[in-house]
Amino acid sequence: MKESPKYPNRCVIILSGGMDSTTLLYKILQEKKEVYALSFNYGQKHKKELEYAKKTCQSLKISHKIIELNSLTNAGLFGQSSLTSSETVPEGHYAAENMKSTVVPNRNMIMLSMAVAYAISLDCGAVFYGAHAGDHAIYPDCRPIFVERMQLAAEVCHYFPVQIIAPYLHQNKGDIVAEGTKLGVNYAQTWTCYKGGEKACGKCGSCTERLEAFKQNGIQDPLPYE
Amino acid sequence: MKESPKYPNRCVIILSGGMDSTTLLYKILQEKKEVYALSFNYGQKHKKELEYAKKTCQSLKISHKIIELNSLTNAGLFGQSSLTSSETVPEGHYAAENMKSTVVPNRNMIMLSMAVAYAISLDCGAVFYGAHAGDHAIYPDCRPIFVERMQLAAEVCHYFPVQIIAPYLHQNKGDIVAEGTKLGVNYAQTWTCYKGGEKACGKCGSCTERLEAFKQNGIQDPLPYE
Repeated sequence: MKESPKYPNRCVIILSGGMDSTTLLYKILQEKKEVYALSFNYGQKHKKELEYAKKTCQSLKISHKIIELNSLTNAGLFGQSSLTSSETVPEGHYAAENMKSTVVPNRNMIMLSMAVAYAISLDCGAVFYGAHAGDHAIYPDCRPIFVERMQLAAEVCHYFPVQIIAPYLHQNKGDIVAEGTKLGVNYAQTWTCYKGGEKACGKCGSCTERLEAFKQNGIQDPLPYE
Repeated sequence: MKESPKYPNRCVIILSGGMDSTTLLYKILQEKKEVYALSFNYGQKHKKELEYAKKTCQSLKISHKIIELNSLTNAGLFGQSSLTSSETVPEGHYAAENMKSTVVPNRNMIMLSMAVAYAISLDCGAVFYGAHAGDHAIYPDCRPIFVERMQLAAEVCHYFPVQIIAPYLHQNKGDIVAEGTKLGVNYAQTWTCYKGGEKACGKCGSCTERLEAFKQNGIQDPLPYE
């Protein structure tokens, strides 16, 4: 069963269009990897993030695919998350109990499984994934234990092992902004707000965390807010 | 993070329409579970199996959904499997090297991830999965080590653990036919052949294994063959 992928320098990245995965993209491009970006449309209210992902890939001249998962949302697989239903997106910090409504059931396992499939079909053995420490409090499928178990599963899903690489798993969003600033990330070209309006709301859990990350670094967030 | 699902007797089953998952369906219905069946259309040549899955669920009066994954196939995520491309489906036993062309990259992780999402949205904690010992030789993502690692990941992907239950993991197809016969499974309503023609070909790896399983039990397969 032991084999090696044909293209060891090639990799897939799960790119939401937010600041974490975009920073990770800049990081691996600096490492001279041949990158294939993958985004997902699962009916999220903030699907605007996909336009940001697309523009980033265009300006960095890398391959980008958006996978349509509306069939899953329509079939009811994602249940009643406030990110995909008519329910109101809650405001405040991630840790609060009411933020649970933003959980999209098993979304990360689904995205990882597809990114791993894509890596195999590209004959490469690496998937980069921007999960970070700030997410843990509320999202079960961002915790290190979940990512570690998915890493073990991906190692045995094919004839050669696929590595799921999550460099930010034990870092917070402030650390990511610090690294991204050094890497020259264009944060005006990243979208974070869950509400997906014309301007970022500045109040949802996602905006709250983003604004704190910039503040922690003494940097002005270049995105326009309401 | 510890919670329990609201409906402990409810479960999801991945139902291909083949004999293994159909037998498993009969088995769990006998155990009086409330069953939600899930099938996948990933552009397989033998998508005829989905019609069989549909008929089985209709006759057993259980919920059934078919998830369309053609967007993944069209995006190239499943690469060049002979099950989804113009490449010829090979004939002979599964163990042979040329059967590797029938591998659909990471298909099982993708299907399991969606079944787990469905279980969470149904507020239940069990996914039944018909992987069996005969598949191991050629399919990496049917081996016990893969299924066991996915089980560990599913246990931590949500606020309550989701169990992936694969009762046939260490049994072969002959054992499954033996159990199914006792359960009264209607094998004329199951489809196995990879070629998906009007009648089963009797020569592909999947047919070869099916025919041997019936022979092992001294039973005539009720399906018409070419």
